[in-house]
Amino acid sequence: MSMLLLSRASAIVDAALAEGRANNLAPLAVAVLDAGGHLVAYKREDGAGILRFDIAFGKAWGSIGMGFGSRELATRAKDLPTFFSMLATASGGRLVASPGGVLIRDDSGEVVGAVGISGDLGDNDERCAIVGIEAAGFHAERLPA
Amino acid sequence: MSMLLLSRASAIVDAALAEGRANNLAPLAVAVLDAGGHLVAYKREDGAGILRFDIAFGKAWGSIGMGFGSRELATRAKDLPTFFSMLATASGGRLVASPGGVLIRDDSGEVVGAVGISGDLGDNDERCAIVGIEAAGFHAERLPA
Amino acid sequence: MSMLLLSRASAIVDAALAEGRANNLAPLAVAVLDAGGHLVAYKREDGAGILRFDIAFGKAWGSIGMGFGSRELATRAKDLPTFFSMLATASGGRLVASPGGVLIRDDSGEVVGAVGISGDLGDNDERCAIVGIEAAGFHAERLPA
Amino acid sequence: MSMLLLSRASAIVDAALAEGRANNLAPLAVAVLDAGGHLVAYKREDGAGILRFDIAFGKAWGSIGMGFGSRELATRAKDLPTFFSMLATASGGRLVASPGGVLIRDDSGEVVGAVGISGDLGDNDERCAIVGIEAAGFHAERLPA
Repeated sequence: MSMLLLSRASAIVDAALAEGRANNLAPLAVAVLDAGGHLVAYKREDGAGILRFDIAFGKAWGSIGMGFGSRELATRAKDLPTFFSMLATASGGRLVASPGGVLIRDDSGEVVGAVGISGDLGDNDERCAIVGIEAAGFHAERLPA
Repeated sequence: MSMLLLSRASAIVDAALAEGRANNLAPLAVAVLDAGGHLVAYKREDGAGILRFDIAFGKAWGSIGMGFGSRELATRAKDLPTFFSMLATASGGRLVASPGGVLIRDDSGEVVGAVGISGDLGDNDERCAIVGIEAAGFHAERLPA
Repeated sequence: MSMLLLSRASAIVDAALAEGRANNLAPLAVAVLDAGGHLVAYKREDGAGILRFDIAFGKAWGSIGMGFGSRELATRAKDLPTFFSMLATASGGRLVASPGGVLIRDDSGEVVGAVGISGDLGDNDERCAIVGIEAAGFHAERLPA
Repeated sequence: MSMLLLSRASAIVDAALAEGRANNLAPLAVAVLDAGGHLVAYKREDGAGILRFDIAFGKAWGSIGMGFGSRELATRAKDLPTFFSMLATASGGRLVASPGGVLIRDDSGEVVGAVGISGDLGDNDERCAIVGIEAAGFHAERLPA
């Protein structure tokens, strides 16, 4: 797999936060993980609650863990609530199924990591993640609406 | 952020318990946490069950973690049960979504901590929390009914 | 077993803290647990670190868990370090072997709970625990020096 | 206590990493936590191992938890190995006793958070932490050599 360099992970974080500020969103927490599910870069805006790290991380980790973004995780969790609760437990609390976690793909289509954002509505968190990924020259997985 | 001193945290606990006794409520457990989610003061009345600490703590911690009281947590959990189960797991069991957890704000509106109470009905637990917060000279977050 | 009432648990906490203040000790955290190992009363003085709750709790819980105070736990842990590390793990992190955890006995000699204190040197923490227990009319287990 | 803003936490991370690059250190992971022990900003340099986040976080968290830097934690752990193993367990793995965790104090001397760095020798990690803290206009706790 190609590597997610810190320089580009940081670019994702900063572009995502700029998008949040441009739209007056609530304070955001933005986590960027590599393809192994390990944290590369993180920023928490002033005023964001103390659970925001775990949620942002969990959206990204769950996306990598299952191979699709956390919007799809949320859709499937609605149909299979007990199974997804078990996944959350099986992962040691590292999977959170709610929009805002988006896979990062390189030009060849390979997954190089994921972004997870928490703080505002899931739809807004997700838009910031996509903006950040594309600003850094990667491709955000867009699922059919 | 301003600091939650022990003297005022203790005043919250004692006023909340006095309110409970004045209304003949079931035995209560009252936990006061600082803005970082750490326990400052706690009392458990005689006869309260052994899970009451975890519930009281979790109502307060969840309020700080998400940035609003546990009544609102409970409302959202009703619509998004699986997501909130995942938050409970992601937080290591420190989030309990049921009325009785109330944010403590100072005169400038900043969150300085939270109170969590368990033992009676959630509405009664919450009222004691609000009475305690106001008796100590702080402001309880009141959400629209 | 006889019950550890909140009124007396609170008396232990307050007397222990008064002893600490009278001797200009570092900020203390004082936890009082019942015979089932559950928290009854807790106060953390201003400025005490965020790990102090876990340490104070763990000294008290470990004392009840093994049936003797945490000074004796520390002595045995020195001879059997791996075993005691395993006990810490087996208890889910609820056992801390260092002076400052003292069993609370009633007039008949029965264990009704334990006090755990953290913040200053273990010897000082322990003295405050003993003062608190005796001020509340209980008996602190004194081990031969 | 005063708040650790993201802007200043990020300044600490970037200055610490610049110091590491200027000295050709091994790839570093740098975590900045607020006074409640929660992550505010984090960067992991390319090539740093997957345990580096937990080590960097644990050096910072342990410093806040006990109220002094992780160099002092390491010194004490040498004398009290079993006790410190228990603290690691009691904290849920959030305490790592090795140089590289340094308290961040503001002009009034209050602790506003901590930096934890991992990747090179502990002495080098620590120097980068101190450089980062001072570059951001805060005061690093310097213990007597």
